[in-house]
Amino acid sequence: MAPVVSLIGRPNSGKTTILEKLIPVLVGQGTRIGTIKHHVHGDFCMDVPGKDTWRHRQAGAAVVALSSPSGLGIIRRTSRDTELAELVDRYFFDMDLVLTEGYKKAAAPKIEVFRSTLHTDPLPDPDSTLIAMVSDVDVGRNLPCFHHDDISGLAAFVTARFLTAPSLAAEVTVSLAIDGRPLLLTVAEADLLRQVVQEKILGRTERLHQPAIRLCLD
Amino acid sequence: MAPVVSLIGRPNSGKTTILEKLIPVLVGQGTRIGTIKHHVHGDFCMDVPGKDTWRHRQAGAAVVALSSPSGLGIIRRTSRDTELAELVDRYFFDMDLVLTEGYKKAAAPKIEVFRSTLHTDPLPDPDSTLIAMVSDVDVGRNLPCFHHDDISGLAAFVTARFLTAPSLAAEVTVSLAIDGRPLLLTVAEADLLRQVVQEKILGRTERLHQPAIRLCLD
Repeated sequence: MAPVVSLIGRPNSGKTTILEKLIPVLVGQGTRIGTIKHHVHGDFCMDVPGKDTWRHRQAGAAVVALSSPSGLGIIRRTSRDTELAELVDRYFFDMDLVLTEGYKKAAAPKIEVFRSTLHTDPLPDPDSTLIAMVSDVDVGRNLPCFHHDDISGLAAFVTARFLTAPSLAAEVTVSLAIDGRPLLLTVAEADLLRQVVQEKILGRTERLHQPAIRLCLD
Repeated sequence: MAPVVSLIGRPNSGKTTILEKLIPVLVGQGTRIGTIKHHVHGDFCMDVPGKDTWRHRQAGAAVVALSSPSGLGIIRRTSRDTELAELVDRYFFDMDLVLTEGYKKAAAPKIEVFRSTLHTDPLPDPDSTLIAMVSDVDVGRNLPCFHHDDISGLAAFVTARFLTAPSLAAEVTVSLAIDGRPLLLTVAEADLLRQVVQEKILGRTERLHQPAIRLCLD
């Protein structure tokens, strides 16, 4: 799963602007960046009224997609807030890093964006998931602190912390057979099995070093 | 994988309108419907300019998401047209039926929408994946044909053909071995594997009747 870093902070502290500046620096290094905006209050709004996908959704479709050679859009009706880990796992499977706006209550590492000209204090009760600040003043926290303009400093921090980890265990090969006959798996099925084997079963410490895996069903 | 039915037809033949009328009938029966619009030509356009997700994407993010308690939107930059099967598999995992607009070259069953007042002939060279017509005239094809207004007839046809599949096979037995040696699974691990096999793999229609399954890792 791609590492996740959440930009948190009070309203209008500049989270989106920081992301807008940080993303191109990281992308320029060859990093595949995904982003998630957590929108807790207010209506969900993503499509363009009148478009075919919008009409499908208005008609009652639970999931609508627009697929083209240059882009893919998926809009899903939900009845609850989706867990951050589930989102990253399912939709950001091929990213190097996922940056979020919001998710201050999730378990991911967080960077708080603070602007003293707008707010008196940073968010209260920081815990150990807060790893840095972006701030125009020293907020007296024993953490790396970057000025709003120091995007290269922030990028270097994020890179060192999240993008230079040792690579994951070598790819495992998954295949499936019924009655000894190989079964053609879709990409998603192979991914799913690989993930289950890798995370849920081999992830148990004593099995971390299995070199290559073949799943067969007989 | 959910069954897929593609509505195909010449421009302005009424595909979106048929979908707009068909979806609520199927949803009213308790069916979870997903839709995919295949947009082969022209720019990809799905988000609202100026929104935070739009800004993330403009900054270079490869995948952007907007997640709220009532809806989830994902927009992904692509360098090629995504395969229909991959789309359905990855994004429509919990739907009962996926209806598409377009994909006339894919392998899914197709229903052609034709309107004689706009076009002289239906699409040429129908193959065996064409299973029905929606048309205002008899086009001389030996297939079920529904008038544009006969949404209930079309819904009954789709329901009978795609939504009355036999129930899943009885409980499957899962075991796991590494290098041929059986591996003791916890109850939770066995449940997880059983669930993966049952829902994600055996759920594909042609595999519904596998009697018992053993998973082994070697």
